[in-house]
Amino acid sequence: MLPDFLLDQATGLLQLCRDRGVMIATAESCTGGLVAATLTQIAGSSDVVDRGFVTYSNAAKRELLGVPLDMIEQEGAVSEAVVRAMAKGALARSKADVTVSISGVAGPGGGTAEKPVGLVHFAAARTGRPTLHRACRFGEVGRAEVRWKSVAEAMALIETILAE
Amino acid sequence: MLPDFLLDQATGLLQLCRDRGVMIATAESCTGGLVAATLTQIAGSSDVVDRGFVTYSNAAKRELLGVPLDMIEQEGAVSEAVVRAMAKGALARSKADVTVSISGVAGPGGGTAEKPVGLVHFAAARTGRPTLHRACRFGEVGRAEVRWKSVAEAMALIETILAE
Repeated sequence: MLPDFLLDQATGLLQLCRDRGVMIATAESCTGGLVAATLTQIAGSSDVVDRGFVTYSNAAKRELLGVPLDMIEQEGAVSEAVVRAMAKGALARSKADVTVSISGVAGPGGGTAEKPVGLVHFAAARTGRPTLHRACRFGEVGRAEVRWKSVAEAMALIETILAE
Repeated sequence: MLPDFLLDQATGLLQLCRDRGVMIATAESCTGGLVAATLTQIAGSSDVVDRGFVTYSNAAKRELLGVPLDMIEQEGAVSEAVVRAMAKGALARSKADVTVSISGVAGPGGGTAEKPVGLVHFAAARTGRPTLHRACRFGEVGRAEVRWKSVAEAMALIETILAE
């Protein structure tokens, strides 16, 4: 079952968006659709959630969100540059006013000294505003826990960009 | 937390796809990304999961998957025609060899006599094969339960089309 604290957060976020007349789109890599799935668990979410892009492969990041392949090769899929490009790409390719993107090393494999397991980058884009970026190092807390924490952080970043 | 029985099913499905050299893409409406989120909870899923389309709005179904708006208007978003078009659209717009689509009335509102709460349509498309369709009536078991049952059914339909 989806954790209650995330569903409570989603309920609040959806109401905030509804009050502002704002639509949301998501662009997810390591969370693989979990942010969209959490938001859409709340009845009535269809008036806020426009769409979600689960861009798990690099080809998907390029084709669905317009992230340049050379950026992915140079910066890595888990990087500030790529999440910023994902969030902006989702904004340009949806009817949403606000988007959030997530790319990280969920583990248990795939970590390096520079980009350890638990490192997750986030970005939130909003029409006519500067794009926000945040990076978290959740540590080796397990793949599921990294993803749940990422869902919470993604929703919090949308709240932040809406408060500006 | 994601239910263990779904994670077990996902693990088996991913291994089946790996053995066949098959990539998957998802096209989700009422499950809102939950199928993709379940598959990608399994470590190593990136060699099987290409991408996912969370097409919650009708605009998203048209723009991301090429579902004709007049089909949605005539048949309804929850219909055999629309899930078939969603699955074929995902196949044409991804690097996947197999896709699955889901559209249903998760509830608690939105049900009608003809399309009651708990009615969910599924389709699976595979390169060079006929597209499969299945409809389930899960009943008024609650929004979360309709979605979990739909995730299981979607994975089962991929297993079916792979077995043909």
